Amino acid sequence: MEPTSTSFESHPGRYHHWRLDLDGEVATLVMKVDGDHPHRPGYELKLNSYDLSVDIELADAILRLRFEHPEVKCVVITAELDRVFCSGANIYMLGQSTHSFKVNFCKFTNETRLYLEEASADSGLRSIAACRGTTAGGGYELALACDETLLVDDGSSAVSFPETPLLAVLPGTGGLTRLVDKRKVRRDRADVFCTVAEGIKGKRAREWGLVDHLVPRSKWDETVGERASAVAASAPDLPRGPAVALEPLAPEVGAGGVRYRHVALAIDAGARSATLTVRGPDAPPPADLHAQGANLWSLRAFRELDDALLRLRFDYPEIGVVLVRTAGNRAHVIAHDRALAEATSGFAREVRLLQRRVLKRLDITARTFYAVADRADSCFAGVLLELALASDRFYMLIDGDEAIAVETSPANAGGLPMATGLSRLAARFYGAPEQAAAVLARGAEGPIPSEEAEQLGIATIAADDIDFEDELRIAVEERVSLSPDALTGMEASLRFVGPETLETKIFARLSAWQNWIFTRPNATGPGGALTLYGRPERPSFQWKRT
Amino acid sequence: MEPTSTSFESHPGRYHHWRLDLDGEVATLVMKVDGDHPHRPGYELKLNSYDLSVDIELADAILRLRFEHPEVKCVVITAELDRVFCSGANIYMLGQSTHSFKVNFCKFTNETRLYLEEASADSGLRSIAACRGTTAGGGYELALACDETLLVDDGSSAVSFPETPLLAVLPGTGGLTRLVDKRKVRRDRADVFCTVAEGIKGKRAREWGLVDHLVPRSKWDETVGERASAVAASAPDLPRGPAVALEPLAPEVGAGGVRYRHVALAIDAGARSATLTVRGPDAPPPADLHAQGANLWSLRAFRELDDALLRLRFDYPEIGVVLVRTAGNRAHVIAHDRALAEATSGFAREVRLLQRRVLKRLDITARTFYAVADRADSCFAGVLLELALASDRFYMLIDGDEAIAVETSPANAGGLPMATGLSRLAARFYGAPEQAAAVLARGAEGPIPSEEAEQLGIATIAADDIDFEDELRIAVEERVSLSPDALTGMEASLRFVGPETLETKIFARLSAWQNWIFTRPNATGPGGALTLYGRPERPSFQWKRT
Repeated sequence: MEPTSTSFESHPGRYHHWRLDLDGEVATLVMKVDGDHPHRPGYELKLNSYDLSVDIELADAILRLRFEHPEVKCVVITAELDRVFCSGANIYMLGQSTHSFKVNFCKFTNETRLYLEEASADSGLRSIAACRGTTAGGGYELALACDETLLVDDGSSAVSFPETPLLAVLPGTGGLTRLVDKRKVRRDRADVFCTVAEGIKGKRAREWGLVDHLVPRSKWDETVGERASAVAASAPDLPRGPAVALEPLAPEVGAGGVRYRHVALAIDAGARSATLTVRGPDAPPPADLHAQGANLWSLRAFRELDDALLRLRFDYPEIGVVLVRTAGNRAHVIAHDRALAEATSGFAREVRLLQRRVLKRLDITARTFYAVADRADSCFAGVLLELALASDRFYMLIDGDEAIAVETSPANAGGLPMATGLSRLAARFYGAPEQAAAVLARGAEGPIPSEEAEQLGIATIAADDIDFEDELRIAVEERVSLSPDALTGMEASLRFVGPETLETKIFARLSAWQNWIFTRPNATGPGGALTLYGRPERPSFQWKRT
Repeated sequence: MEPTSTSFESHPGRYHHWRLDLDGEVATLVMKVDGDHPHRPGYELKLNSYDLSVDIELADAILRLRFEHPEVKCVVITAELDRVFCSGANIYMLGQSTHSFKVNFCKFTNETRLYLEEASADSGLRSIAACRGTTAGGGYELALACDETLLVDDGSSAVSFPETPLLAVLPGTGGLTRLVDKRKVRRDRADVFCTVAEGIKGKRAREWGLVDHLVPRSKWDETVGERASAVAASAPDLPRGPAVALEPLAPEVGAGGVRYRHVALAIDAGARSATLTVRGPDAPPPADLHAQGANLWSLRAFRELDDALLRLRFDYPEIGVVLVRTAGNRAHVIAHDRALAEATSGFAREVRLLQRRVLKRLDITARTFYAVADRADSCFAGVLLELALASDRFYMLIDGDEAIAVETSPANAGGLPMATGLSRLAARFYGAPEQAAAVLARGAEGPIPSEEAEQLGIATIAADDIDFEDELRIAVEERVSLSPDALTGMEASLRFVGPETLETKIFARLSAWQNWIFTRPNATGPGGALTLYGRPERPSFQWKRT
């Protein structure tokens, strides 16, 4: 059912579903979903309902605002339709999707909404949801991810979560968590709201904290403009730019996988495993970081990695284990990390944040990752060492001349935190910060060869060439023989040690429940509410509570 | 498949599966599962594997140690078998159970293990797991809940989590979370450990932090005794006792529900709703709190409520909505709360902790709770007001003479925190502590009638007698018409606003994943690993990752 090759790249010039209007510090992102261009055939995108194709464009627009339009301090998300802001994820699309696609679709849309919030928190790019009409389900969840929500006060337009009463599922894009944890809507009111299919409008919506401003239709444009200017003016005065155009990645996609300039995803379908290789930079960074534009290795390689991870999720659902390899010159990686850490431009900040997001994307990708350093040119250094720390295990070959080694950089010292807020080193040595400090101290002296990396707790297993190959081969064979479902739950539990945040709550508590609910007969069985949506039959439920 | 009446009461004199040996400051709880006395027919409890009947006795033993044996400062949990500590939850029992039973079984066993940890943290009752043999699955999870783990070093005894490799499910009793969050086992080592069915033994188990002490067989008894004495000696010097015997609750169980002295659970099976009524005390507390022994209202009523909640979970799975009512004299409840808050005895502390545990049990019970105050004798005061704050909604009737009111006590000011660590008032007004403070300040002045309670944010809906009955009736009818699965996920997301803790992680992240995995064909389908356990066929898996 999934297309075999999903492109996650887009460009405003090619958008079907959005229009990006720029006007100084304020940008407007106008949702105008084109029903005739769904992600795949089989359903029509009515009433600004969305599917993956709509969200890919939204993610692209947010990314481009950050890199290409650094002057923008407030983006207004609104709709072209007169009486509908957004009616949420398309139900027919969900009804036709496999479980695996549904879960990955929700994961991607969740990431995109978190990126809106990250842009506000860390890039000074604020957002306003200007909802001039029905704001339902995922539409309201999109509004919840913005800094401020305006709802038209026309006696009929409401915000709503009809998922539970109409579809027997949950709002799948962080809505429940954001209601109570972000907007701090009282839990009993949230309970009422989430069971009233028609939603809540007008003064009550404002009083309950569901929206920030009610705006009469007659003053709509004026008020939206005023709020956008005010929000832009109050955005923090961070360094901005210089602007860098994000050129297409244009990977080669073939039967064997996907190949980019620095990244390659090689698929071994028979073994249900893949190899993800990231090549380090060929040279140190230029004196002026933005001189190479989007070709700067730190940016380009991580955009490629991001795209590869998304393709892995959507296009290769049966790949259970991914071997993560690196190749290149460690000193060049470290030099790039240092230059990036020291640079104060808005562009450098955006590159660092992009790297952070991509590594988080890896953290929550539901596949087993084994990092492997078994060649002399392996370069798990700095930001690439984070790939090994994000992986479930790290296998290192002990070579005679100690050419195989890891190396640390400022990127490992806290600048690329996980969703929990911990650095990957702090998470690895949770409760033993002195061990994380020891790794950084040792790393400051130079490369750490395999055997020492194992002693320091960086490598899971270091073995010499008599044992290494068998050890790794058996580990992969065993892993791919285990149940994918159990592994997903196990990895999700072991990877996120320590504090939970709004972000981890969305991916754990909320998404894990949704994951279950999506599989239940009450939602997706022959008589389930999601299955029967839009049909005359009423759903029939099993009544046992669990 | 579930029996229609499950008794959660037991007594050491009636234990089939444990023996409680008392010796001054040290108690020993010996597991000796009697295969011929399972919770229900259809499987045999071999090799110290457990089912609900075993865990009910364990919970009883921990409770009795706290109330009846306050001299005990360390309990050693061990086994009578020579080569097996505990092989975990019985797989045949799980394979034969409904989804609803599996989930509620895991919830109960999780609660019991958390109670062990609470006894250590708040009652100074430490625990040691003395594992003289195989310690597998739920057996190792029981050990993880103890303060200290001793493993025999005999060349073969190992600790293990075979759930994922053998059964395609997760360790269901907090094991994954405790591995990395409590014991701080490195995540990559935890990953290896959880996929090696035979487990890890000897020095490696200690080096990885899986156990605390390795003990040769020849020094077993001696070392266990030494550790128990040392742990008891290092337990904090808290007030203890006086001892109070927990007499049987002996409820009347009939077709219409369950009736206790202070609590009644009335079932309306046709409407799929129930009414849970808690009566307040008939008189103020005695001057000496323990003079009435286990008949003290604060203790007896909450033991009854606990039992009623467990019966609700196990025996009435189709009840979707529970109306929570109270009846009695508010001043008497407040007087009991005050006396309990001011008392410094170990007994008073244990009663407060029991109330806290019962209210947490309510928080995570997967049913809709609507608290209802619509009679002049309703008494949502102090600790009983917590029932309303724990409920999903609170409906109050506005009566002419303002007889219906709520009242606060010291119990609402933080002494009965939720699993998140927040008081229910703080959770209700998350992000607005001044509103919680305003309720307490107003409550100090006297009863808060319905209309004012709504204005202060305590009541969800207050209505006069023209509207009240219809409002409540419709709310119940609508609620019971919705999908139970979606409601469970929705309520679990809205109830636990704010911080997550090890405890909430176990019930959210971990249990929610397990909930999903239990429904997947790879585990419980005709070819699933749980289904086929013990049979010659190999499981066949669907390979898609989600």
